[in-house]
Amino acid sequence: MTELPAPIVRLSRAVWRDGELRETSERATPAETPIALVYDGGTQAVMMASPADVEDFAVGFSLTEGIVADVSEIESLEVVDQGVGLEARMWLAKNPSRDLGARRRALAGPTGCGLCGVDSLAQAVRPARIVEAETAFSASEIHEALQALWKAQALNFATRAVHGAGFYVPGRGLIAVREDVGRHNALDKLAGHLARSGEDAAPGFVALTSRVSVEMIQKAAIIGTGLVVAVSAPTALGVAMAEQAGVTLVAIARDDGFEVFTHPHRIVADKAPESALRQV
Amino acid sequence: MTELPAPIVRLSRAVWRDGELRETSERATPAETPIALVYDGGTQAVMMASPADVEDFAVGFSLTEGIVADVSEIESLEVVDQGVGLEARMWLAKNPSRDLGARRRALAGPTGCGLCGVDSLAQAVRPARIVEAETAFSASEIHEALQALWKAQALNFATRAVHGAGFYVPGRGLIAVREDVGRHNALDKLAGHLARSGEDAAPGFVALTSRVSVEMIQKAAIIGTGLVVAVSAPTALGVAMAEQAGVTLVAIARDDGFEVFTHPHRIVADKAPESALRQV
Repeated sequence: MTELPAPIVRLSRAVWRDGELRETSERATPAETPIALVYDGGTQAVMMASPADVEDFAVGFSLTEGIVADVSEIESLEVVDQGVGLEARMWLAKNPSRDLGARRRALAGPTGCGLCGVDSLAQAVRPARIVEAETAFSASEIHEALQALWKAQALNFATRAVHGAGFYVPGRGLIAVREDVGRHNALDKLAGHLARSGEDAAPGFVALTSRVSVEMIQKAAIIGTGLVVAVSAPTALGVAMAEQAGVTLVAIARDDGFEVFTHPHRIVADKAPESALRQV
Repeated sequence: MTELPAPIVRLSRAVWRDGELRETSERATPAETPIALVYDGGTQAVMMASPADVEDFAVGFSLTEGIVADVSEIESLEVVDQGVGLEARMWLAKNPSRDLGARRRALAGPTGCGLCGVDSLAQAVRPARIVEAETAFSASEIHEALQALWKAQALNFATRAVHGAGFYVPGRGLIAVREDVGRHNALDKLAGHLARSGEDAAPGFVALTSRVSVEMIQKAAIIGTGLVVAVSAPTALGVAMAEQAGVTLVAIARDDGFEVFTHPHRIVADKAPESALRQV
């Protein structure tokens, strides 16, 4: 296995305090590494990401961007350090209906496709998958997930500069956390981890430290969870996509409460007092 | 001129407080709109952005992504609302050395180029332009810029969910602010505004509410400013790019101080007491 670059880089810097510039201890900064996602020898995307959990990232990106429908379609995956960045080399099972060129043109982002503007726009905001998971969750489960998420973020604890995505299952707690300098990458890494470990997403929910833009909902819907909980605010298009996809969107989740933007039926009265009684 | 979609969308949602879900007032959320950047009839990129200052965005993106070297190369610019998103249609002056196909392949992001991984990686982290501006700035100018930036962010004041990029010139104050759901878009809008108004960037600096990833430094270097000040933390690659580009990077800028990661010679002792004396 390739040894990855360190995800934390300690840098010396000066600090301005009380009217003068002082040399002090080093600061931990998050590494940011270009990762090329290469399918059957051709690059589909280059993402700037944290160089950790790269296999999870490659599998998650492939799933949430619709390049494969199932992790089993990825026949091999190898991560190669090219110095200037990492390559995640994947070879896919033969599938006559797959058209990587079409997928290339369908993704929003800073690399162009040459299509006309109208076609490009229509392909950029693809409709989300409709989520069928019907598990309901309590407010205390939501709070417990967020508290566990903060504690589990090792990279953010050191750098205070990365996003986290966690997966919480009632009764099991926060079963996975992935971190990245990009919020969508953190969610892709989580998606890849869940798929690689064969975890069913229907009984749990995704917890995010970040804002909720439209692509976060598109990715969560493909993961198959019925609830997305975010510490920060959503965009209007993120809310509209959650409405359409049948995803319950909880955001601006703080210690004293949270806001429910879509499909509130999955949020139920606290189970906590009842289980406390049962323990007596 | 096309009437743009509203940048703020008011949405009703429920709030969980004190053990129950309550209907309350609406929340202002930021619109997030796909914007296709179309050159000579072909789409170069589709970015998810706030639908405000779209002309600034189109010009700034064209400059900071190296599609044009000067605003004068954009012969016409028209913004068209296509319902599903906006098109910024640009027609460029003939330039035999311009190769849009090559630029398409050179940008990092979620849309692929089909190149091999190594070539894609090398093109994704393009070296920054070397900045020659030598203006120095004081700590009180930096603090004044950040205070003015917070106050000037109308969209963020309403939504608490967008990034801001401002330009501060000593003696003139914060002369421009642009906001967007994406931090790189906010900086591109600022770059476009400065270019369209013929503003020389050498005497001033860029102030950001966001973290500093590598592309923020690449864009600031093309704007031509010698100082980038950010409220949040940089990535390690952002710091390395600032070092290489000759850009002074100040980050984690708070009321009681800030950290200087690169080229500290542009940060000088406070001019404030001296000018206070002169006023006596």
